Amino acid sequence: MSVRSGARYSMPGMMETVLNVGLNDESVAGLAMQAGGDERFAWDSYRRLIQMFGKTVCEVPGEEFEHALDDAKRARGTVNDLDLDAADLRALVDAYKKIFAKHAGREFPQDAREQMDLAIRAVFDSWHAERAVLYRRQERIPADLGTAVSVVAMVFGNLGPDSGTGVAFTRDPASGTQGIYGDYLANAQGEDVVAGIRNTIPLQELERLDKRSYDQLLGIMSTLENHYRDLCDIEFTIERGKLWMLQTRVGKRTAAAAFIIAGQLVDEGLIDLDEAILRVNGAQLGQLMFPRFDLSDEPKPLAKGVGASPGAAVGKAVFDAASAIEMAKSGEAVILVRRETNPDDLAGMIAAQGILTSRGGKTSHAAVVARGMGKTCVSGADALEVDTRKKKFTVDGTTIVEGDVISIDGTTGRVYVGEVPVQPSEVVRYFEGDLDADQEGVDPLVSAVHRIMAHADATRRLRVRTNADTGQDAARARRFGAEGIGLCRTEHMFLGERRELVERLILARTEGERQEALDALLPLQRADFVEIFEAMDGLPVTVRLIDPPLHEFLPSLEELAVSVAVAHERGENAGKAEALLAAVRRMHEQNPMLGLRGVRLGLVIPGLFAMQVRAIAEAAAECAARGGSPHPEIMVPLVGAVQELETVRAEAERIIADTGAGEVSIGTMIEVPRAALTSGQIAEAAEFFSFGTNDLTQMAWGFSRDDVEGAFFWRYIELGIFGISPFESIDRDGVGRLVRIAVDEGRVARPDLKVGVCGEHGGDPESVHFFHEVGLDYVSCSPFRVPIARLEAGRASVETAVASDSR
Amino acid sequence: MSVRSGARYSMPGMMETVLNVGLNDESVAGLAMQAGGDERFAWDSYRRLIQMFGKTVCEVPGEEFEHALDDAKRARGTVNDLDLDAADLRALVDAYKKIFAKHAGREFPQDAREQMDLAIRAVFDSWHAERAVLYRRQERIPADLGTAVSVVAMVFGNLGPDSGTGVAFTRDPASGTQGIYGDYLANAQGEDVVAGIRNTIPLQELERLDKRSYDQLLGIMSTLENHYRDLCDIEFTIERGKLWMLQTRVGKRTAAAAFIIAGQLVDEGLIDLDEAILRVNGAQLGQLMFPRFDLSDEPKPLAKGVGASPGAAVGKAVFDAASAIEMAKSGEAVILVRRETNPDDLAGMIAAQGILTSRGGKTSHAAVVARGMGKTCVSGADALEVDTRKKKFTVDGTTIVEGDVISIDGTTGRVYVGEVPVQPSEVVRYFEGDLDADQEGVDPLVSAVHRIMAHADATRRLRVRTNADTGQDAARARRFGAEGIGLCRTEHMFLGERRELVERLILARTEGERQEALDALLPLQRADFVEIFEAMDGLPVTVRLIDPPLHEFLPSLEELAVSVAVAHERGENAGKAEALLAAVRRMHEQNPMLGLRGVRLGLVIPGLFAMQVRAIAEAAAECAARGGSPHPEIMVPLVGAVQELETVRAEAERIIADTGAGEVSIGTMIEVPRAALTSGQIAEAAEFFSFGTNDLTQMAWGFSRDDVEGAFFWRYIELGIFGISPFESIDRDGVGRLVRIAVDEGRVARPDLKVGVCGEHGGDPESVHFFHEVGLDYVSCSPFRVPIARLEAGRASVETAVASDSR
Repeated sequence: MSVRSGARYSMPGMMETVLNVGLNDESVAGLAMQAGGDERFAWDSYRRLIQMFGKTVCEVPGEEFEHALDDAKRARGTVNDLDLDAADLRALVDAYKKIFAKHAGREFPQDAREQMDLAIRAVFDSWHAERAVLYRRQERIPADLGTAVSVVAMVFGNLGPDSGTGVAFTRDPASGTQGIYGDYLANAQGEDVVAGIRNTIPLQELERLDKRSYDQLLGIMSTLENHYRDLCDIEFTIERGKLWMLQTRVGKRTAAAAFIIAGQLVDEGLIDLDEAILRVNGAQLGQLMFPRFDLSDEPKPLAKGVGASPGAAVGKAVFDAASAIEMAKSGEAVILVRRETNPDDLAGMIAAQGILTSRGGKTSHAAVVARGMGKTCVSGADALEVDTRKKKFTVDGTTIVEGDVISIDGTTGRVYVGEVPVQPSEVVRYFEGDLDADQEGVDPLVSAVHRIMAHADATRRLRVRTNADTGQDAARARRFGAEGIGLCRTEHMFLGERRELVERLILARTEGERQEALDALLPLQRADFVEIFEAMDGLPVTVRLIDPPLHEFLPSLEELAVSVAVAHERGENAGKAEALLAAVRRMHEQNPMLGLRGVRLGLVIPGLFAMQVRAIAEAAAECAARGGSPHPEIMVPLVGAVQELETVRAEAERIIADTGAGEVSIGTMIEVPRAALTSGQIAEAAEFFSFGTNDLTQMAWGFSRDDVEGAFFWRYIELGIFGISPFESIDRDGVGRLVRIAVDEGRVARPDLKVGVCGEHGGDPESVHFFHEVGLDYVSCSPFRVPIARLEAGRASVETAVASDSR
Repeated sequence: MSVRSGARYSMPGMMETVLNVGLNDESVAGLAMQAGGDERFAWDSYRRLIQMFGKTVCEVPGEEFEHALDDAKRARGTVNDLDLDAADLRALVDAYKKIFAKHAGREFPQDAREQMDLAIRAVFDSWHAERAVLYRRQERIPADLGTAVSVVAMVFGNLGPDSGTGVAFTRDPASGTQGIYGDYLANAQGEDVVAGIRNTIPLQELERLDKRSYDQLLGIMSTLENHYRDLCDIEFTIERGKLWMLQTRVGKRTAAAAFIIAGQLVDEGLIDLDEAILRVNGAQLGQLMFPRFDLSDEPKPLAKGVGASPGAAVGKAVFDAASAIEMAKSGEAVILVRRETNPDDLAGMIAAQGILTSRGGKTSHAAVVARGMGKTCVSGADALEVDTRKKKFTVDGTTIVEGDVISIDGTTGRVYVGEVPVQPSEVVRYFEGDLDADQEGVDPLVSAVHRIMAHADATRRLRVRTNADTGQDAARARRFGAEGIGLCRTEHMFLGERRELVERLILARTEGERQEALDALLPLQRADFVEIFEAMDGLPVTVRLIDPPLHEFLPSLEELAVSVAVAHERGENAGKAEALLAAVRRMHEQNPMLGLRGVRLGLVIPGLFAMQVRAIAEAAAECAARGGSPHPEIMVPLVGAVQELETVRAEAERIIADTGAGEVSIGTMIEVPRAALTSGQIAEAAEFFSFGTNDLTQMAWGFSRDDVEGAFFWRYIELGIFGISPFESIDRDGVGRLVRIAVDEGRVARPDLKVGVCGEHGGDPESVHFFHEVGLDYVSCSPFRVPIARLEAGRASVETAVASDSR
């Protein structure tokens, strides 16, 4: 008999293992008789049952059973379970029962009915397991929903040579080619196949062993494929010549295979292109865009962990944050290796190329923080014995010390010794235009991506723009399919050599001094915009007026205070530093994120926004005069009240008219909750809205990304407070509600309002679907994410069509 | 003829002056004939007309006319206009016409119709004046609404001894006693009365001069009072024995008079108590609660400015922020005197008892910031010549230098030399229970306040609680009428001698060390709560678990860094400071307001919230055991997601059950926008909501009070972006919308949800009306504001009843 939890409500932490019951000291003899007198089989089954039951129903530590099994094999001088005979296994059953009694505080139950009741109870109890509770909390699944338990008869694949068990794919999981793919192991149960101890045979050979079952299996596989119209993965058992299907599901596949298979299925007429784009997703496309390790030399992985944050990173192993920072400073690429990370490791993680941990999964601190930083990470490589004090780790006798080069693959979770060569992504080369997808002999992956992207572009309603601050980025994003710039930040234009001008602007004591600094900045800004308008000629370019507080362009208060104090101590003159310190102290803010920035700065520092608007308008006029077609849009940041926008707009309109630039639309970021809440008013003064979902998330939740991602997000994810950082994927209930309000009420006030998003959520697959649903006109994201957004926008359109068809 | 703007849409910056037109070089002779050959009158009228017309229609600087008039009087050796004869005035008209031509760029128009057209045009144009535009922007008045202009015939009070002009009150504006109160000036125009150059006579004497007009005036006054059922203030003119009413309005009065008059009107049966509480307001009550100067010695004011922020402050004059800080440090009370303040003066303003400026009105930087700080301020005392470099100011020959004591009255705007004695408020003494309102001979103000407060309490639906952190504050607030504590902050309980324990908690390296620090804090916290529960026995006490980030309890990063650097420089050992610096640096946040605080801290630091919950529950159990009736409510701060609250709640419930405390309800602050947006979910885990409108305002607008009030609010108010700081009075459209959403959706999820507010808005008159409207159960504010909130809550109830009656 086998007991399993109801699949419908299965969730992490719920009992998902199939649990066998029904054997006891007496019935084991009956099983042996059933098995044609095979006592070995009967005792082995009984042993397995005690182990599984003990572990999952009575929380007996599994490794104790393993140790006992190892001892038995060692006594017999073998490593293969099959070398243990019936007497060995019978002795093992006795040992197992002792282990059971020791930990469960009771004898192993002999009543089959009691075993079943306990197993059923354990499944029901798993509804209250901590992980299940956290998962429900996080997903807002009602706690009184309850779960179900299925009780089914068992079949045995280990009843002799006419029995066996196997796994199969309905087509090649790597290429999608139709055929027979799978493995079979005669006289074995499922665990034996998974354990990999005994060598399986290719599935094709089953035809020779048991033609009837083989033919029947092929028939079922074809039925399943026609039903799912997709690659299926199958588990089956043959019990004395009778085929039983245990389980099937749509088969997992690599990102590359997903694209190739989708194309294959279209070619075979099993699915259409609409369905094909639903078979792949942006996360997979993203994986294909990272550089990969060139594995043509077939390097042997040292260990395998969880692919927690994709990418291919190579560097010298370091074992603490301080060393990571120090070595990174001297230009070395490093991989930070820790048992697990915590907030103290943050600076080290920033300094490293990649992070490798021996503990924790996809939601560990290391994984969450690395994904937030876009940094390669392999977590939970549990074969590693990490000794941070001795600055080394050991795996299977291989020792890596500080300074040894390792390579980690954040997609597959594999860890290699030495430098594995990295090769650029073929898919990126295709997007860059270096590969022609229609050419003979092109990588089938490129050809599949090409077809699917073309269909996504034909299908999607959302436009896709890019966030780019330079002509170079803009040109690259345009090759990646960007249809304009959704966010051109002007902050970097105040850095580098221009920092000195900004310092003069900030320290100006008179209107004249300030205006002088602004006048010097004007031609530099104008040249920046000319470059960008040219790269995006014919397409809209949204320029955001300066957003961060001015003191961000000055040195840090702490450093200045220390250098002044030290100079005083030495009796040295610290005149200039002192003046700067006074300015920094005057401008110091407790919470710069909530201080004098964005439109506030523009309204308080006379001439600053005016200079930027003039630079934009003059740049547009210059491009147009040369025969170009610039489409500038001026975006005012951090507006919370329509009055702010009206004030800036009045001045900007005068300047634009003055420069003789053509049409320049003026709009605003919606990044302050109040802007969304009063969007009907704000739309009266805005020709477009662009959601700054990063700030909007910060303010709606009341936490700043810088301060929280390392400090407590990992803990929140651990506690099930949320499943994914709201900075990664948009929080539909809270931030999303603000977005809906603003779109709806903004359009009531101004029906032709253009609405987009320019936060990094614009390139997040889940979020793109949300933005499609609420009816945005476009999303904007970093150049690298433009193809991902295009694909997801297409998928969202198809999903909407499917959903409305099924209504 | 006289032209005035339509009253209905009149607004700041619109032309509100009555503008006379219709005289020219020819008609002046006709006017003289009309006036029985009084040429002096005719030329004087013409002179006045040119001056007013020039100033308001053609922007001629008014002081040039004044200078010319002064010159004429000087030539005649007089200071009285009446000593100028017709020839003098005729010469003055010529001088005025030259001044007009010089500035207006044209001759003074001779065509009366042209004069009127220009005047009408000027009134219409004032719709586009900068101040009017700002005012409309701020109040969201549509710009296309337009204005109206009234054209009426003129009457003259200066046509001889049977003409005159006067002002009157229908009752004593100080006490409300019925009678004849006013002033009359024969043979004069309104300006003459206002200018105060000629001595007026008491209105009663008009009876003797012109009995018919006098009797008619009394009849009209009675009609007006019966119509308005309130004290009216009236302007009238008598032209050759014929009475003309120029204007009437409900008369202005002092705060004390408002209460006394309201009581008087009730006694006379003119109004009922419902109406009486509408005749006073919380701002007036607040003024009455400040200590006042004792003016029984009739000190002569040195100057008068705008009463920008109420209170009576005495201190040594200082002229810059640095001196203010230095002298305040050595324990001196100082008044900061500046021409006007700017953000650099902030620290000095904080250090001073009061602020005095010679420029700017109620919306100047000084006024806005002082009100925000609750600091006494007189602004725009323009008679002061302030010389900050020489550290002195001069008024009418009196010079005050740094260190001289001055007294400023922030209610009346008066400035005195020397120390004026301060006396406590009678109203506060009454609230404190030191005065019995029913006693014979009690101050009529106290008696009036008593009646009105009693009616407000009988009428209001909103409960009023207080924000108090100590037993002492709680007891005081209870005397002031508080019906419980809406916010007991626990932060101060971590200061003083306990700081050392908190440092141990923060620097703990092991669970054991941390638990030890927590264990030491537990009995201290418990004792705090016992004290508070006893002071509020029988009433609800909402205790907020710790809110600010822990590093707020450590020294500043800058100071530590400097002291460590200096120690190193000196070759000294800085071991302890260095360890502390490392901790501070580790915990340093870019934006502490958006960092690890509130519920986040509780979820990340094991045992912290548990210790507080235990202290509350044990204190409640202790009080109950002694026969008390404690009603603790535990409030979890900064919740943004229901999952946070559920997690804290689960642990808290276990602890409460464990301590055997009775019922303890658990709820949350709504202070993060997301909490309001997902209030339906949060209400599932909360028995009450309390709006933290300060944080909610900060996050909805995206600015922190600390960083913006001094830095740019004054500029925003100047630009008309808002009329009043949203931290003073709730922003209905933005923050208010979040409040509405949370009340409505919270109650849908949990119909018996208790909902209150505990931000300082709970004591702001305007905001209390809003909270009544949206249906809160209670407001909570600082003890001093409790009576104000009680009164306004009563007024809000009456207003709602009136509004629904009139529907």
